[in-house]
Order: sequence, then C-alpha cells, then structure tokens
Amino acid sequence: MPRDPRYDVLFEPVKIGPVTTKNRFYQVPHCSGTSDNAPDANTRMRETKAEGGWGVVCTEIAEIGDTTEFWPFPSLHLWDDADIKRISRMPEAVHRHGALAGVELGHVGLAAGNRASRTPPLGPTSRLTLESVEPFQSKMMDKQDIRTLRQQHIAAAVRAKKAGFDIVYAYAGHGLSIFSQFLQPSFNTRSDEYGGSLENRARLLREVLEGMKDAIGDTCAVAFRFGVNEIDGDLVQGQELVEMLKDIPDLWDVNISDWPEDSQTSRFSKEGFQEQQIAFVKGVVDKPVVSVGRFTSPDTMLSQVRRGVLDLVGAARPSIADPFIPTKIDEGRVDDIRECIGCNVCASGEMSYAPMRCTQNPTIMDEYRRGWHPEKVPPKGSDDSILIVGGGPAGLECANILSKRGYEVTVADARADLGGRVKRESSLPGLSEWVRVADYRLYALQQLDNVNLYTDSPLEAGDILEFGMEHVVLATGAKWRRDGVGRINLMPVLRGDEANVLTPDDIMDEAEATGPVVIYDEDGAYLGNVIAEKLVKEGHDVTYVIPVPEVAPYLALTMEQHKVIARLMELGMRIERLKALKAVHTDQIEFACVHGGPGLTLPLGTAVVLTSKTPEDRVYQDLIAREVEWPDAGMKTVSCIGDCEAPSIIAAAVHAGHRWARDLDNTKQHVPQFLPMPLAQ
Amino acid sequence: MPRDPRYDVLFEPVKIGPVTTKNRFYQVPHCSGTSDNAPDANTRMRETKAEGGWGVVCTEIAEIGDTTEFWPFPSLHLWDDADIKRISRMPEAVHRHGALAGVELGHVGLAAGNRASRTPPLGPTSRLTLESVEPFQSKMMDKQDIRTLRQQHIAAAVRAKKAGFDIVYAYAGHGLSIFSQFLQPSFNTRSDEYGGSLENRARLLREVLEGMKDAIGDTCAVAFRFGVNEIDGDLVQGQELVEMLKDIPDLWDVNISDWPEDSQTSRFSKEGFQEQQIAFVKGVVDKPVVSVGRFTSPDTMLSQVRRGVLDLVGAARPSIADPFIPTKIDEGRVDDIRECIGCNVCASGEMSYAPMRCTQNPTIMDEYRRGWHPEKVPPKGSDDSILIVGGGPAGLECANILSKRGYEVTVADARADLGGRVKRESSLPGLSEWVRVADYRLYALQQLDNVNLYTDSPLEAGDILEFGMEHVVLATGAKWRRDGVGRINLMPVLRGDEANVLTPDDIMDEAEATGPVVIYDEDGAYLGNVIAEKLVKEGHDVTYVIPVPEVAPYLALTMEQHKVIARLMELGMRIERLKALKAVHTDQIEFACVHGGPGLTLPLGTAVVLTSKTPEDRVYQDLIAREVEWPDAGMKTVSCIGDCEAPSIIAAAVHAGHRWARDLDNTKQHVPQFLPMPLAQ
Repeated sequence: MPRDPRYDVLFEPVKIGPVTTKNRFYQVPHCSGTSDNAPDANTRMRETKAEGGWGVVCTEIAEIGDTTEFWPFPSLHLWDDADIKRISRMPEAVHRHGALAGVELGHVGLAAGNRASRTPPLGPTSRLTLESVEPFQSKMMDKQDIRTLRQQHIAAAVRAKKAGFDIVYAYAGHGLSIFSQFLQPSFNTRSDEYGGSLENRARLLREVLEGMKDAIGDTCAVAFRFGVNEIDGDLVQGQELVEMLKDIPDLWDVNISDWPEDSQTSRFSKEGFQEQQIAFVKGVVDKPVVSVGRFTSPDTMLSQVRRGVLDLVGAARPSIADPFIPTKIDEGRVDDIRECIGCNVCASGEMSYAPMRCTQNPTIMDEYRRGWHPEKVPPKGSDDSILIVGGGPAGLECANILSKRGYEVTVADARADLGGRVKRESSLPGLSEWVRVADYRLYALQQLDNVNLYTDSPLEAGDILEFGMEHVVLATGAKWRRDGVGRINLMPVLRGDEANVLTPDDIMDEAEATGPVVIYDEDGAYLGNVIAEKLVKEGHDVTYVIPVPEVAPYLALTMEQHKVIARLMELGMRIERLKALKAVHTDQIEFACVHGGPGLTLPLGTAVVLTSKTPEDRVYQDLIAREVEWPDAGMKTVSCIGDCEAPSIIAAAVHAGHRWARDLDNTKQHVPQFLPMPLAQ
Repeated sequence: MPRDPRYDVLFEPVKIGPVTTKNRFYQVPHCSGTSDNAPDANTRMRETKAEGGWGVVCTEIAEIGDTTEFWPFPSLHLWDDADIKRISRMPEAVHRHGALAGVELGHVGLAAGNRASRTPPLGPTSRLTLESVEPFQSKMMDKQDIRTLRQQHIAAAVRAKKAGFDIVYAYAGHGLSIFSQFLQPSFNTRSDEYGGSLENRARLLREVLEGMKDAIGDTCAVAFRFGVNEIDGDLVQGQELVEMLKDIPDLWDVNISDWPEDSQTSRFSKEGFQEQQIAFVKGVVDKPVVSVGRFTSPDTMLSQVRRGVLDLVGAARPSIADPFIPTKIDEGRVDDIRECIGCNVCASGEMSYAPMRCTQNPTIMDEYRRGWHPEKVPPKGSDDSILIVGGGPAGLECANILSKRGYEVTVADARADLGGRVKRESSLPGLSEWVRVADYRLYALQQLDNVNLYTDSPLEAGDILEFGMEHVVLATGAKWRRDGVGRINLMPVLRGDEANVLTPDDIMDEAEATGPVVIYDEDGAYLGNVIAEKLVKEGHDVTYVIPVPEVAPYLALTMEQHKVIARLMELGMRIERLKALKAVHTDQIEFACVHGGPGLTLPLGTAVVLTSKTPEDRVYQDLIAREVEWPDAGMKTVSCIGDCEAPSIIAAAVHAGHRWARDLDNTKQHVPQFLPMPLAQ
C-alpha cells in the first residue's frame, strides 16, 4: 500500500551539520547488553534498524579510555586506534541501507568501576563511585587528568570519524557521564575554574565540544546528548546550559534524567511522556532537536514534529520492538507495527549484563547468531499441519511465524479469550499496554487464510490424537503453586487446599479477597505489587510481606523498583521485609525471620501467595505416555514450549514460540556461542 | 637454603589413577573472574602457579554446553570441538613446569540463567533458578534431557583429554551443580528412577562418572569434587554417597558446602577449618583425597598429611596470595611466604564479574596483561633515590618492590607503627590476620640494606624538599569524612565538629563512646560491623542504622554478608534499615526514610558515622604548588598513590604501590585491554 500522505513530513530529510538524514526516524543511542565481545551480533542488530528504514542509527556508549571502564555493563571501546577496525563494521553496515551512523562517545566518570583496568575512577571530586557496592572512591581530577580526558575524548572522536561515523556524540545524560558530574554542584565542589559557576562547571564539556567541532566538524555532525534536568534535577540550570551551548553542537539529543526516567515503563507513563520537560529546547536552539517518548503511533510522531517539539523522532525501545516502524509507515502498513509494550525487559538485559531481550520482538540480538530477521521467515518445508494447544504468548507467536511460513495452523485455547497470561495479566493495574503482545499477533493471524483459531476448546490427549495433525505443540502455560514452594521454602509449607489462600491465578479469575489481606511475594517481580495495588483500590487493608530485603528485586532490572515502592507507600501499604512464609491458619498467617530473629504473625482474612509456578504440562505428559498411538493418528512430533516447559518471563515464551516455528523443517544450524566468545589474542 | 627435611613428605609424588603428581601441592579448581574472553590472562595466571611449584593446577568451571550458561559469572567453555584449541593452552603452559593440569567440567543446572543462549535452564524439577532475581524457572529434565546432559558431559571429557588435561572433574560442589540438585530431596521430587532413594538421586552422577572413566580413564584421572554436606546439609547422606561411589573416581576433592562455607574468611574461621567435616573421607575411600582449609603454614599442611586427613594439600586462596608457596617451602624460605589474609577480595572479583584481585598479591591476573611476575622484578633503571611518605599498604608495597629492584628507598610514617590502615584495622575484632599485609612487607624490607624505615616522622612539604630525593611518593592514606557526605547524602548533613560524632579513625584511635551508641553505615563494607562488634563487646548498647535494604552489601561480594548479619543479631543489636542520616543533635540522632515514609529519631550518646573518605593529600598538594622549588631540591617527580589518590579497598592500594614501583624507569608498555577484548569473529 502507498504511504498515507499525512505522514510525508516524517520522511523529509533533515540537515544535521555537515550531514543529512533521509528522514526524521532517529534511533537514539541505546544499550544492547552486548559489547565488543559480540561485535557481529551488535552490528547486525543495528543494521536491521537501518534496513527497517531508520534515517539515523546510533551505537551505545563507546568508552574513550581505560579510566572509564563501564564493565560489567557491556559497552563498546574506542580506547585506541586498534579499536577502529572492529567498530567500523557498524557504520559500514548501516550505510548499506542509506542511513547515517552515530556513535555515543562516553566517559562515565564516577559510574566507572575500572574493575579490570584497575586505574582509579575519576570525578570532579573524590566521591564514592556510582553503580557499585564496593567502597571505591574516585580520584579528584587534577589539571593533567582534565587535559588527558579532553584529549582522549577528541582522539576518540577522530577515531570515530576514521571508522566512518557520521554523527559523533558528547554525552551528558542518565547520570552516567563525567560531564554531568562536573555540571552538578552535588558532585562538583571544586574551587578552580572547573567548579563554582555553571560556566565553570560546563567548562570541560564546552572544551570537549569545541575540540570535537575543530577536529571532526568538517565532515561529522557533533551531537550533544543531554538530560535537561541532569544538573541535580534542576530544570532551570538545564535551560541555562542549553542557552549557553546552543551554538556549538550540530544536534541536540535531549531527554529527562536519569535512565529510569528516560525509559519509563508503560506502568508509570504513556507515549510522549517527556514532552513537557524537553519542549523548551526547540525554542532556544537553531539546530535540529531529537527526543524520545516511547513513540509507536505515527500520529503522535507527526504531532510532535508539527507542533515544533522535535525535528527528529527519537526512539530506543520502539525501534527494538519493531525495527521496521519507518518502513511500515512508508508502505501504508501502520497496523503491522509491533508496538513496544513499555515493559523494560530490554533494559533488564543490560542491567543483568546479558544480551538485550524484547517481549515483542524475539529476534532482537538473534539477527546474527540465529540468523533471525524480524520481518522475513523462510517458506515452509513441508505440507504438515500443526496443532497448537494454548493461545498465550508462546502459542500465538508460534502460530504467527508458522502461518507466515505457509503452514496450516490450528490454535485451540481452553479459555474464552486468546492471549493467555498476557491477556489476563494486562487486566491488572498498570499493565494494559501489555495486551499488545496478544493483539499484534491476533491481528497478524487474522490476515491469513491458513490459520484456525478456536476458543473455549480445552483439549485432552485423546482429542488431540483424534485431530491427528502432524505436529502438536503444547503451549498450555503454567499455574501458580499453592504449596508455598519458591525461592526460600524449597519444601511445601502449605497443604494447597487452604480456603483463605489465593494465588494470582485466582485473583485474575476474580476470586474475592476478604478481611485483612496479606500478600506474600517470593516471586519478586511485578504481579505481587500490581495485585496489591488492585486490592487496595478495591478497599482492602493490605500488608505486603517479602522474604528479601527489598520489594520486587526483579524490578530493579526493569528500573521500576523505586517507583513501585513509592506507589505501595502512597497507597498506605504496610511492608514487612525479610519474613518467610511459615504457616497459614484460619485467621492468622505466620512468618519466620529469614535471619533467625523474631517471627511475625498477622491477622488474616485472605492470603495472596506468589512463590513459583507449576508447568501445566499434564496433556503433554499424557501424549508422551501414548507415543505408540502417534503413528496411527498421523502425528510426528509432540512438543512443549513456553511456560509449560519452563515458566519464565513473557519474553521467554515468545522467544520459545518463535524458535519452535523457525526450527520446524529447518536444517538445524549450529548456533554460535554468544557471550563470552573465543578470542584471537 | 635447602628444604627443611621435615617437609619432605609434602614433596612426595602421589599416583592419581593413570597419572602421577610430583608433589602434594594441589591447586584445586577456583574462579578467576575471567573467562574465554581473556584466555591468555587466565592461562598465564595458572602457569605462574605451576612455575611456583604446585604439582597440580586446575581451571575454574568449564561449561559443557548451552544449557549451563553461567554468564555473567565468567567461566570457560568446552561446548564443542572448536573450544579445544583455546583451552589447550592452559595444560600446555602448566606442563612446561612439570605440573599436572586439571579441568573442572561443570553443569550448574539451576544456577544457569542461560541469559544469552536463551535455552531453558534445567533442573531435576521445575524450580526458580538460583543466583538470579529474574523469575526464571527450570525445565524439569525429561529422559532425553538426561541423556543429552550425560552425553555432553562425556563429550566434554573427551575434549578435555584432547586438549591435554591430566585430571578431569565431575563437579558436585558449592550448590552449583546439576548433580547436587539431583542429589538433594529439596530440589529433586522426581518419581522416576532419578528420584527418591539416594541411589536414584545419584544415578545421573554415577552414569556420568562411569561414562567418563570409560571414555578417558585410560590416560586421564577422573576426579570428583563433592561438598560433603551438599545434600541438603546432611552429612550422613554425604557419607552414604562417598561410600556408594568410593570405587569410581580416581581422586576425591572434598570440601564443605556451599561456596561461602568452603571459602570462609579469616573473620569467621581459621586455617584448617574444614577438617572436622571432611576427615571421614580418607577412612572410606582408597583413592587420594584432596581438600582445602586456607593452608599457608607448612606445618599445618604436614600435619594434615601425617594425620591422614588428606593426601594432597589443596589450596585456592593461598595459591592466589602466593603462587610460589611450594617453591618457598622447597627452598627453605618459609618466612618468605606471602600468606593469604582470608579477606575474600579474590571472590569479590568473580562475584562482580570482574577479574580476580588479591590484597596480598597485586600481580594476580596481571601476569599476562602487565607482564608482572609475583617474584621477579626488573632491576633498577637509575641510581635515583625514592622517598615514600606513608608506610601503609601502598607505601610498603611500593618500597618493597623498589628495594627489590635495587633502589635506595626511604619510608617515613607519621605514626609510631608502620602498616597504616591495615595495622590499625587489624586491631578490630576478626581482622587480626589482615596485619599480614604489613608483616609480609616489613619482613621483606628488613632483609635488605637499601631501605630506611622511619616511624614517628610526620613530614611537611618543606621537610620533603630538604630531603631532596629524586622521587617523592605520597602514600598518606585517607581519613573518614565528618560531614556525612557519602552514597546517599551528596551534600553535608553534619557540621563536622559535633562532639558526639566519631568516625572509624577516632575509634581506632581509641576514642571513648558513651551512652547509647548509634552506628550509621553508608560505607556498606566491614568496618561498620566490626566496630559494632567491638562496641557491643565493650558493653555498649548499639543500634545499627543503614540507608540501604540490607547490612553491608559489599560483604555479599566477599560472601560474608549473611554471617555478619547473623553475628549482629547474636549480639542483640537493633538494626534499622532504609534510614538516611539527617541530623545529629546533642542527645538525639535523626534519620529520614529513604522511601519518603516516617523517619526515625533515636536517643544518642555517641554516633559512629561511616560515609566516605577524604584523601589525605594536603602535603602532596603543597608540593605540587611548590613545583618551582623541585629542581633546586634535586626532586624530579612527586606522586600520590593509594588512598591519598583515590580511597578504595586495601587491594587497590597495594596494587597502586606495586604499579608505581614497577613503572619507575620502565619503558612504559601499552597495557592491552582486558575485558571485554576485541574478537576475531
């Protein structure tokens, strides 16, 4: 289909200093959870974005030297000339698709542990390093250190130019930059010309920006990425800084600080959430401005440009969920966009030092290793039919890919709605956008003739044998355990039939909680606290009990933990930490102190217990037990994918469904090791 | 000097299945915080042990396939034949020195996040994975999974043999093995022939051990590493297992479980601490037995062998602190042994996914990258003299290396004792072994003529200019801040002159605490809690307040956190979590809730405040300001090392002192990047 002419403005070229981007789609620098350990995987991911139509594609942080060793957070390196060749593959690959390539040079200052290089971390003053529990303090940079840093940054810019980048960044965002630390009075108490007034605190940054312009400004755009409230949260000083430096960078890439604020989840904010804070920038500077806001709707993008908020529509997460957003808009296929659900599973990769994952896009970071393309699938290898039992995230993704490959696919789900756990969980407070995981796939499946979708269709092994399809895939999910077995209690502490104990499954099935409610959360992720929110809003008195020191440790990885705690406290919830479930009685619940101190007994109406899950694999096991009957039924294989194989995050289920669909009839390829990889040393 | 004949027994050869070790010194498998990312660094570290006389040198865990991806914990790989070449460098290097090479094959089961491979973690049942905050559950292994694992393990053993290893392990220790998880009823509730009785739970292990013997037993010894209380802490079942399998492995490598128990710090236990639990093994099996116990004394080693506790003297940490222990005993240089202080800074590397560090041995993991040998230093490059101001860990190490290089060295310390912070801190409860950092260096310095040591000698810039030595090194340490600036409070919350506020420096200077004591620990390491211990033992009523969810987060990296909490609770201490220091009044101390909830006010006699440190660099700054006077004084350089440059852990100070001493007059070499490193992909 042709592009809707309304969106033409999004496809206008924009001049950025000495270079010009072909359109307004701009993939801002973002982490990938990989590094120079896996340059091909990293490069292919970026290339896929360029192929998908983004006008500009940027790297993550590229370290400028041994005093900014971000390890174990994965990052790129431009420490010396030997790094040029490796990193140059990224601009080469991006250029093949007519996009510009940007590189985010970075010195993270106090956020550098320098754990491998063992050089002292650097800061404007001697402070405890960030992102670390070790008592490492920075060296207060002397004049020589400042000179060295400036020279290193400019040398890295020259290397970036040699490597073929079109846009080279100086970075003062996310609280992860030596420039921010100099800018902030809370870190910078220097009495020399690099401390004191904002002009002084900005001196190092200005020197670097000017040095970069001199060194590479003839052919490269110098971009400046800035958290507008980066200076101790003070937007006024941020505005002063923009005013002060407005003529130097060729591009302003602005956001709100720090990283959790820049990458807010859909639980806490909606598309376009940064506009209010960053909108002033366009009024101050004459250079192009890019910013982000989890934009997945072309109408919102258009509105941002039309209303003069931005010149370039920045994206990190939406470009991960769908690297082909620009192409889809260009081709009039707006409904095909696989929209980011704002869950921050992508960030959880980086935060756990692992390759990025995405709930919506299972191919991300597997473009190179597994050869997966987000839009292209190989044609079917046979005329076999496939029955998928269970229409949750694993089942729907599996059906989606199989049907695109041309297979006849039948999906049968026992419930009245397709979507499985995403459908059910998205009904809870704050998770409504998660339903996109089901909606995207259901829309895609409805476009094809070779798919049959059945609801209200519970199937037993006998039914499946009667169907007699060549391949049977069980994607029947998992249910929450009722016996209290989890991380802490390895053996049951509940009988499982207590009338006053509910699991999240019961809550999602609208079971009634009564009396004082106690939520016991050993899961440590999101469900316990969204259920808490729901129950408090329904008027219940809720106490939240956890066996660990802090609420929802998993949500530290999605950068939501602090917001969740704040919300629970706003709701007036009592939080009891370090208490492990011991027993549930008729009107009391008992906990033991995990450190052997005094326990805790609470009055109880209803307990909601989140510990771990049991795979719903009964039908799978029944079929395995009846393997002798398969040939007569015409069945060749029976598989189990997603939560019914191994309960995990939704992203894992989608990945498993995708993988099964790709692997059917494919000559299995050897999947290379990812991280760590062998070195030529 | 010749070897003391008493120790001859330590140098007897021992037959281990088809191979024979030249002596009883056995470096058991231990982590290095590196992996296949840095194979040369890893290999050179192991080679240095072989050079130092260890009869057997082993690797860390080598993963056997993509379902046991231990990442981000660094580990080796024997996933497929392509891995053989890389790993074979280790046995090659070890063989050059007449030692045997061992490899610890491992499948960590539930401890594998499989974050990069994205294959489901495996377990005997479906359980939440260990070592993870993510809600990842394992797949309950089916028969095919069990077959695959067995085949993978045996295939990896065959690869290990091809790579040149002499000893190949099966591993069921530290709670980090699929075999342990099958052995434990708390994880294994299977009803098939792999669950139930101990025989059934040990079936997979037995099959693998027997398969390994068949496949490689002709030329390789098959070793079994077992935590004797690994089976849910039940030593009786451990004994039954040893009895059951006693004839299969060629070597029993036994310890107590889990890793924090196997690697107890000197704060909690002394040399030989495992004897009681592991001693039974020698009575059951006819094969050689190796175990560990932080052995640094040859007399203890001898006693262990003589009394029939062990055949082979195992070591991990002592071999890191001094890779040349065997050679030093052999050459009658027992006093030269650089004894492990039991601080677990080594483990903190692995636990933070960073290359291993050691407080005592700054050369560890820098053997390859920086070309540092633990025993050899280059001769001096000039006749320059060096004045070192400050005889703490940085100053003494610097003096030690410079004097070994042949330089004239003067060390002047303001205090009556040399040793600086290690001397002072080691006077606190549980840290007595840490004084070895000073003692080792002082002993070494006392053996040489070219060293002058002065105590009670505070020096000002003017004094130093009068001395007129060519090089001046300030190693004057740091002092604890009195203004409350740290991780949480970035701006001062105290005036600094409060009479009822003490810092750790005051406590070590024997300042008197009075009335109810409140310790506020923003440092999060050991000093706060050892001071708490001291004050409670002196009869004070102590409340321990922390701004974070749990006590001493840094000690999670040294694997002591749980023991420290237990000890504080045994001492009856009140612990207040998530409270940030707000103000100190005459008889009260005020805290704010870090989550914005209700604050806390406590009655106060004395507050002990640990936030962060100020470098003691005044004299350094004075000398820098008087640079014009240097030539007349004959001074060429003035440097600042250790805590007075950037306050950090003691290991960092020792490393900085070592580095300065190595770098003097050395043609500076380019230090290659360490982690992550460029790949040929």
